[in-house]
Amino acid sequence: MGNLTERGITDMTTAIDNGVNVQALLDAREVLKGAPEAAQFTWRASSKWQNGVHSSVTVQNFFGLGAEQNHRSESVFDADHPEIFAATDNGITPIEYLLVGLAACLTAGVASVAQNRGIQLRSVEATLEGAHDIRGILGADSDVRNGFSDITVTFNIDADASKEDIEALVAQSQKRSAVFDALTNPTNVTVRVA
Amino acid sequence: MGNLTERGITDMTTAIDNGVNVQALLDAREVLKGAPEAAQFTWRASSKWQNGVHSSVTVQNFFGLGAEQNHRSESVFDADHPEIFAATDNGITPIEYLLVGLAACLTAGVASVAQNRGIQLRSVEATLEGAHDIRGILGADSDVRNGFSDITVTFNIDADASKEDIEALVAQSQKRSAVFDALTNPTNVTVRVA
Repeated sequence: MGNLTERGITDMTTAIDNGVNVQALLDAREVLKGAPEAAQFTWRASSKWQNGVHSSVTVQNFFGLGAEQNHRSESVFDADHPEIFAATDNGITPIEYLLVGLAACLTAGVASVAQNRGIQLRSVEATLEGAHDIRGILGADSDVRNGFSDITVTFNIDADASKEDIEALVAQSQKRSAVFDALTNPTNVTVRVA
Repeated sequence: MGNLTERGITDMTTAIDNGVNVQALLDAREVLKGAPEAAQFTWRASSKWQNGVHSSVTVQNFFGLGAEQNHRSESVFDADHPEIFAATDNGITPIEYLLVGLAACLTAGVASVAQNRGIQLRSVEATLEGAHDIRGILGADSDVRNGFSDITVTFNIDADASKEDIEALVAQSQKRSAVFDALTNPTNVTVRVA
């Protein structure tokens, strides 16, 4: 997309407000084109085992724009297995956190793209389903993978736009989604013992 | 692994207790080998856009063992972007939720495998780092992917076991991890508008 066109659309649409500062994002895009080192982020989490399959995971600081950064507050998340797995259900399962991230990432994208395209959103809801054959993780069948078999995301969007424009918003959100990419394409994960 | 060997190891090690009911999991494995339809789970999440790139995601019910199931309580998670992205930072970023899930999944695996192998754990901590070049999501360089470039997980484990046995625990956890698989291998994700 040409920047003049993007700027033009943005200027035309100052009356709509989805709460996204699109101009700041467009400016960041221009700056980071010439400063790739500032675009290198490191997101971090640290976990502590509690008991059984229950653990707590803390997220607070990260690195980006060439410096250490902090979230406004520390967040702690509990994960566990449900009682039907003979566990204590002190939190959602680890794999459900992937659906949380996917829902939030695609929704943030819809809001950002809508702002950029001058579309006022009234509500954006999504329901996600992740199919999972648990024979994989239990080791009951080595032909069954451990992760999701597939994931379906269904959006319900109320906005000042046609069905076609809403579908195009969702398509563009997918195209730029960090989590959609992380789930649909492989990432190298190195696990080591200190 | 032969079941007799697994059972034998379990029986030998009743004195150790990591809080994981390994016998229930081994029994589930045997039952589900003959009842693959009961092993088909559907995990669910539903999200609501709040404003800007802030959304809230709710997790409560799921399907498995042939019936609708519920977590003991509903969990709600906020996701947002940080202030350096001109956003309100009302929660961690969507992509950080992937690290939360990965930490918790590998930790649950370490506890389960340790229980099965008769290894008493005292503490299991992990730090995770996800490298992310944000030029992808900003559309600044079409050669840069949207998701993580790579992820590193570093475990610190205090247990009644040798370094080699601890490394083997972590390796086996990786081998059976739902989230490790979901991040290192592609999953089909369908996104649609209702």
